[in-house]
Amino acid sequence: MARVRLLIGYHGANYHGWQQQQSVPSVEEAITDAVEKMSGVRVRVRGASRTDAGVHAYGQVACFDEVVERSERTWYRALNRWTPHDINIYAVQKVAPDFHPRHDARGKIYTYRIWTGELRALQGVENSWQWRRPLDIEAMRTAAQYLIGTHDFSSFRAAYCDARTPVRTLRRILITQETPSMIKITIEGSAFLKYMVRNIVGSLVWVGKGSRPPEWMGDVLKACDRQAGGETAPSHALTLETIHYPHHPWVDYAGEIYRPFGAW
Amino acid sequence: MARVRLLIGYHGANYHGWQQQQSVPSVEEAITDAVEKMSGVRVRVRGASRTDAGVHAYGQVACFDEVVERSERTWYRALNRWTPHDINIYAVQKVAPDFHPRHDARGKIYTYRIWTGELRALQGVENSWQWRRPLDIEAMRTAAQYLIGTHDFSSFRAAYCDARTPVRTLRRILITQETPSMIKITIEGSAFLKYMVRNIVGSLVWVGKGSRPPEWMGDVLKACDRQAGGETAPSHALTLETIHYPHHPWVDYAGEIYRPFGAW
Repeated sequence: MARVRLLIGYHGANYHGWQQQQSVPSVEEAITDAVEKMSGVRVRVRGASRTDAGVHAYGQVACFDEVVERSERTWYRALNRWTPHDINIYAVQKVAPDFHPRHDARGKIYTYRIWTGELRALQGVENSWQWRRPLDIEAMRTAAQYLIGTHDFSSFRAAYCDARTPVRTLRRILITQETPSMIKITIEGSAFLKYMVRNIVGSLVWVGKGSRPPEWMGDVLKACDRQAGGETAPSHALTLETIHYPHHPWVDYAGEIYRPFGAW
Repeated sequence: MARVRLLIGYHGANYHGWQQQQSVPSVEEAITDAVEKMSGVRVRVRGASRTDAGVHAYGQVACFDEVVERSERTWYRALNRWTPHDINIYAVQKVAPDFHPRHDARGKIYTYRIWTGELRALQGVENSWQWRRPLDIEAMRTAAQYLIGTHDFSSFRAAYCDARTPVRTLRRILITQETPSMIKITIEGSAFLKYMVRNIVGSLVWVGKGSRPPEWMGDVLKACDRQAGGETAPSHALTLETIHYPHHPWVDYAGEIYRPFGAW
């Protein structure tokens, strides 16, 4: 029997996030249910990232210890059959028994989409923030540079975040014009505090709309106080794209690893 | 009082196509209603293209003769206010009184999206054909070349098409890999018969999946018989992108012409 690692995508609209909670649907529960349907046994499924309610993913990672031995291909087919339509298992791989999806992760990439067109978008409304006013991308790029590096991110941390330390490392914030009216913000870091990406985006938008100068972002960071920053951007425009496992690559996998990057 | 030209986008899912019909919703009716709400008068709204039920548009064009005189900006605001959320008026322009949206059109561009990933797409399902098997793009490109030029397109014409002649000119068929699993087919022509784009796409897919060699497309065209071709591809993956009016350009327009190309 082995530890089984899953590469998971989901459209977050119908879930109260990754983590299992009483009486509301979660992705963790849906996958636990699927494993149970396949094997008859209810196992613990450990996820790498506790995405918030409404957040989407193409690169969530989870694992469980199989009680019934099945091939990777069999798990792949069975889990895709038994999960709902808005959850996909992109890859299944048996890994070392000490693999831990959260502890072994060395970085994550999130994307956030903001629609700046005057009129409502006709497509993609369910995964972009319908801001519908212009944003100054250059000012946002300048502001973003204040956050790169290893810092105390208390100013971008939700009040009820349970992380032991507020220190995180941001490696990259890339702000691009994906289409004439869609701005895509790509944020890569070692790990993230609760609401950290959404709080960073909300503060970047305050700069982009001209309410604050780019240098303000440095002041917010230094304040180490959530009150200093901008609003929390809505969850439905956020997507967990990738989790890096440099010491546990997705290789030697018999099946096909399919990553539909930018597929909307 | 002037003739008013509109540049219109819509998400087609909730409409039985452009053309007004009894007891089912249409885009034409929704816009006619909006003009009436603004001016108190029910005018005739003429569209350039009678898109099928479920088809989307970013470049539909229509016009009407104003009975109450209003500025372009006022019409723009009022029509966007009074049309449903899945219809956008991207531009309003007063044109010569003899402008005719269908007769003055000199070409149209449609796009068609096919999802070839093994697993269902998590985004964009509502505007792509969930084919979910591989397609040979090179074979499809070769096949498409048989259709370029001026031909009798009877083999790609719906049984109840009321066009006077089946002769049309196809200028370009571009088949690209939009994302790793999304194929985008761009078709440009002088004008199109009923279901012509969807019938061409359906036949291209027969070549792409290997059921027919590329040369077969030439045989289908020559047969001048709808029975010779492939299936009709579903409507919800088709988008009317642009209508060309070389003699009536969208210039000297006071407002902003916004075209959210590829915005999903």
